[in-house]
Amino acid sequence: MENSLTQLLKIKYPIIQAGMIWCSDWPLAAAVSNAGGLGVIGSGGMYPDELEENLKACTKATQMPFAVNLPLLYPDIEQHVQHIIDYKVPIVITSAGNPKTWTKKLQSHGIKVIHVVSSVRFALKAEAAGVDAIVAEGFEAGGHNGREETTTFVLTPAIADSVNIPVISAGGIRCGRGMLAAIALGASGVQIGSRFVLSEESSAHMNFKQAVCNADEGDTELRLKAVTPVRLLKSKFQEQVKEAEERGASPEELEQLLGKGRSKKGMKLGDLQEGELEIGQVSGYMDQILPAGEIVTSIWAEYLQSKIAL
Amino acid sequence: MENSLTQLLKIKYPIIQAGMIWCSDWPLAAAVSNAGGLGVIGSGGMYPDELEENLKACTKATQMPFAVNLPLLYPDIEQHVQHIIDYKVPIVITSAGNPKTWTKKLQSHGIKVIHVVSSVRFALKAEAAGVDAIVAEGFEAGGHNGREETTTFVLTPAIADSVNIPVISAGGIRCGRGMLAAIALGASGVQIGSRFVLSEESSAHMNFKQAVCNADEGDTELRLKAVTPVRLLKSKFQEQVKEAEERGASPEELEQLLGKGRSKKGMKLGDLQEGELEIGQVSGYMDQILPAGEIVTSIWAEYLQSKIAL
Repeated sequence: MENSLTQLLKIKYPIIQAGMIWCSDWPLAAAVSNAGGLGVIGSGGMYPDELEENLKACTKATQMPFAVNLPLLYPDIEQHVQHIIDYKVPIVITSAGNPKTWTKKLQSHGIKVIHVVSSVRFALKAEAAGVDAIVAEGFEAGGHNGREETTTFVLTPAIADSVNIPVISAGGIRCGRGMLAAIALGASGVQIGSRFVLSEESSAHMNFKQAVCNADEGDTELRLKAVTPVRLLKSKFQEQVKEAEERGASPEELEQLLGKGRSKKGMKLGDLQEGELEIGQVSGYMDQILPAGEIVTSIWAEYLQSKIAL
Repeated sequence: MENSLTQLLKIKYPIIQAGMIWCSDWPLAAAVSNAGGLGVIGSGGMYPDELEENLKACTKATQMPFAVNLPLLYPDIEQHVQHIIDYKVPIVITSAGNPKTWTKKLQSHGIKVIHVVSSVRFALKAEAAGVDAIVAEGFEAGGHNGREETTTFVLTPAIADSVNIPVISAGGIRCGRGMLAAIALGASGVQIGSRFVLSEESSAHMNFKQAVCNADEGDTELRLKAVTPVRLLKSKFQEQVKEAEERGASPEELEQLLGKGRSKKGMKLGDLQEGELEIGQVSGYMDQILPAGEIVTSIWAEYLQSKIAL
């Protein structure tokens, strides 16, 4: 499959592994890139020296293009950007912030910049800031999420109709049928998160992977909308948030309840009660942990089969 | 296009117009059926004699199959069912209630029964109750909606994998690309609502149609989750509900705020401030009122084009 996205990123399959905090260290990124997708290191939870270690290792582990996911609100972003430039990372996926701030600088070093958005409005802003492609992320996606709650099915064609750069659909995609549907809706590729949490190479704690396998339908909820909307797996912490929100807790109280380090506690350290567990709606329909490369090739094979069967 | 759904319902295109309360009197149903889709009379807001008038008129206006949407919690349901049987309506789409109660009775009169669900759990129950097909309705749909908030992209393949009867995808579908995506995800057809509110034949008040045309992205919200979840267009009433929910109002207070007759006031009588305006997320991306038949044929044409372009 050759299209504007595979050409832009120089990848074989337009399958991008989401750079998820605590779940996407270099072993996952390298495995996905080696299988022909785009592996992405999630830098959100890393200190700059940890990112450097990951870049060093990933560069050794794959000859193929890989990317770094860079939350634009990251406090030490200058150091992250410097490491990305120094290690000649070919692609950066930015999110959670203004794409104007870093896009030109990264591009001046030959880096392609993709920005994650949840609305047409933000897609147009990102295009105006000069990004090379857009990730259109729907309400069903895990982790941080748009305030408008627009779903992948609605968002993908709306953004594809509005911009002139490649659109990558994200949220709710777990298999080749989903990839085919995203492309039917106008996307040039897909970004897949939750499915790759359930890979052998994912750096998520085994307790968290097991909880994702065990998740049933309806076991995730978008919470903390008054602070920063985030899709959470049911847990003691999520119950506390729900209870607080249902009695009308203030944003300040919610911030205090969230505190610091909850996502690391849950996803990296495996505390399923006190930790924050970020995962997508598709977690209700998956229960197998597989090698990441096998995930890429099986999605691709199912995509081809589904296209023929259509 | 011939598939299990078109064969079951004896229709040309697997495009079903949602039987929406206040918006779907016989002129819309007849126009859709005459164009080769399945037109549906929304009986939710009708007295039994009004339904009879609609059945009489629809039977005269089209030779093609049409359906009635029947909310199973409707107070005078026995009379509705009797009219449906007397007028030999070939298809009934049931929702909001237990499919066990009426399915066998309707089928004993040769009527095909389709039930609307928002989860795999309910889909399995409906299949066990013997229904002929399932509508899988996602979070992005207008009006009453599932508590789990599962989206069309996630729900469609999950239900298609779980049942052995045809699945109709609903929520977020407004065009031929959406229809193609739904079929890629495992559906045999689509149910489309909001797009048909914007038809010339829809019985919605012109004020409401105009408000739907003017809606921007993010202008709908799922509200009243503590009572019965419903996707509403922004309005003074929706603002009141939001304010009450954000301060933790009780279900009783929300019930009282909702009161009686709000949906008629909004959608039928055109009171955009005090009325309840039920519409899907796609309302943010549509602004044309067209003849219903033209909507059916343009969706079909775009479906075919998109399939070739894939």
